[in-house]
Amino acid sequence: MARSTRPTIADVARAAGVSRGAVSFALNGRPGVSDRTRARILRVADEMSWQPDHRARAMRVQRAQAVGLVLHRSVDTIADDPFFASLIAGVEQVVSRHAWSLVLDVVADDDEERATYERLARERRVDGVVVSDVRVDDPRIGHLVALGLPAVTLQRPTTPSPFPAVRVDDDRGMRAAVRHLLDLGHRRIAHVAGPAWLEHGLRRRRAVEAELAAAGLAPHAVVESDFTAAAGARATAQLLDLAEPPTAVVHAGDPMAVAGLGVAHARGVRLPEDLSVTGFDDVELAGHVHPPLTTVRTDSRAWGAGAATALVDLLARRAGGDDALGGEEHDVHLPPPELVVRGSTAPPGAAAT
Amino acid sequence: MARSTRPTIADVARAAGVSRGAVSFALNGRPGVSDRTRARILRVADEMSWQPDHRARAMRVQRAQAVGLVLHRSVDTIADDPFFASLIAGVEQVVSRHAWSLVLDVVADDDEERATYERLARERRVDGVVVSDVRVDDPRIGHLVALGLPAVTLQRPTTPSPFPAVRVDDDRGMRAAVRHLLDLGHRRIAHVAGPAWLEHGLRRRRAVEAELAAAGLAPHAVVESDFTAAAGARATAQLLDLAEPPTAVVHAGDPMAVAGLGVAHARGVRLPEDLSVTGFDDVELAGHVHPPLTTVRTDSRAWGAGAATALVDLLARRAGGDDALGGEEHDVHLPPPELVVRGSTAPPGAAAT
Repeated sequence: MARSTRPTIADVARAAGVSRGAVSFALNGRPGVSDRTRARILRVADEMSWQPDHRARAMRVQRAQAVGLVLHRSVDTIADDPFFASLIAGVEQVVSRHAWSLVLDVVADDDEERATYERLARERRVDGVVVSDVRVDDPRIGHLVALGLPAVTLQRPTTPSPFPAVRVDDDRGMRAAVRHLLDLGHRRIAHVAGPAWLEHGLRRRRAVEAELAAAGLAPHAVVESDFTAAAGARATAQLLDLAEPPTAVVHAGDPMAVAGLGVAHARGVRLPEDLSVTGFDDVELAGHVHPPLTTVRTDSRAWGAGAATALVDLLARRAGGDDALGGEEHDVHLPPPELVVRGSTAPPGAAAT
Repeated sequence: MARSTRPTIADVARAAGVSRGAVSFALNGRPGVSDRTRARILRVADEMSWQPDHRARAMRVQRAQAVGLVLHRSVDTIADDPFFASLIAGVEQVVSRHAWSLVLDVVADDDEERATYERLARERRVDGVVVSDVRVDDPRIGHLVALGLPAVTLQRPTTPSPFPAVRVDDDRGMRAAVRHLLDLGHRRIAHVAGPAWLEHGLRRRRAVEAELAAAGLAPHAVVESDFTAAAGARATAQLLDLAEPPTAVVHAGDPMAVAGLGVAHARGVRLPEDLSVTGFDDVELAGHVHPPLTTVRTDSRAWGAGAATALVDLLARRAGGDDALGGEEHDVHLPPPELVVRGSTAPPGAAAT
């Protein structure tokens, strides 16, 4: 096929009646255009058989035409935490456009994890991997460097890492949730945290503590949990059993918060008058429960898409002769999460609306 | 390694202090043992490096050591419908024990779907595929036969298929939900259905109609939906807007039912006194919303695990020289789903409990 016939971004922009910037955002799976516009642009680009120049080449020369995701989680968590389905959807959103596959492995322990990365690298089953659930002192970074397997991490690890990271400032989201409760007049604010061995569990907890400290307060109580609804229900029961229960609970994840609403309801606690509740992620059901959940909207789809895009870009640079693994200058920064205020929060003791 | 040193099922049973049957259930990812016992058996089997004889051989001789799943769905649905995460978890539960991968592809249309199956077969990226979302007049069956790519379908298609199917009698679950509402005294029973082009959407609707017909009734109304929470919310709003609204709504899926509860709450409809609601699947949140959802418990994890097991068995037979693709005699029958009665259903007009 003659190279000169290949349509450019400008051609796609003209055909779709949008700016080149909008086309670029849409084709790279980045935020900045509405879903509807994105859909139209992708349809036009598909109809014109558009392929980005450098990526097109990279996508052709890679051997595996696949991206790997190795999850060191119970298979239960994959079934129960909507984050993973969204992450997978986001990765697929990018790789499926190039007819690449996602190779998914679930491992039970550190040894199996190491063996799996070795197999993926040795047998060239994937061209690179997305690393999720970054851990405190994460051993995977050094291992992947040793294997020469390109990677992108979700968040920049505190462990030094040469790989690009997809970053989102979730501290800001957690702090906004706490600030919102403080502004409503709450002082007894508890936190249902994620596990402390996961960097994002720890980081969100510290953000809650920092925002409370700025108001001269400490958390009324902190219950460490594991992001599941069942653990969230237990944590809320524990908090309601306190001699002096909190008037508000900030959860590190939506499934925990929704389960917390259920426990409070079942005990006859009036929501939100007697208890305000916030979540994190804005999963699809969050807006549909009663009262609708005030939560911090993150875009886990965009996270997956951003990671896949960063990985494809890294592979493209390597295919172009650049042996570097990436590094911080190639980090992708996603827009900060925003607080979505719904009916599950109100001033303490407020009359029902 | 000397063959005689390989531990048998009897050895594992002895070490775990359970019956051989329990070991067999646990190792094959089939229902019949508690999660706790299953976990113990798998741990013991792992410690003893147990491998099933025929499968062990098959798993070694297959080339790809991977199972494929090609989803013809919007990436949105993958993020929003917990069924897919559970299905993936179930497949992983089986394949990850053999250090196999799941190769996941999302396709946008029929052409891309065909091209993807062709690529998976031609490049030997997978040893077989799991076929979900069986469609009325499903074109994939004939295509997979032509490609010689082994497959297992979720439910036996009405289209003739030579492949084994993992079957669950969801009719029985839907009929139990309707029967429960009839027994409570409901007569104005509406149905929020799945799409009619999916066999399970259509089958569940017919089950609702059949159970109502057996009581001399017809559905008060049927709204066709698409299994998402957003569509479920719209459907419930539509039903509540009827001049004579239903006293009970049977949903073909939990996300729709949970969203239906939220809409009813928001309109000041008393739950369950003014409106009884049932779902289907028993997703994790179903028991945690308010009122807790009466629903039909299916085990989508077991479905994924059953499909992966049936596929591994089929591959083992083929590795053993049997060229047949399987057929109905190798269908796996899962236990029928059961109705889980919770607080979202009550006699029409009943006082709150």
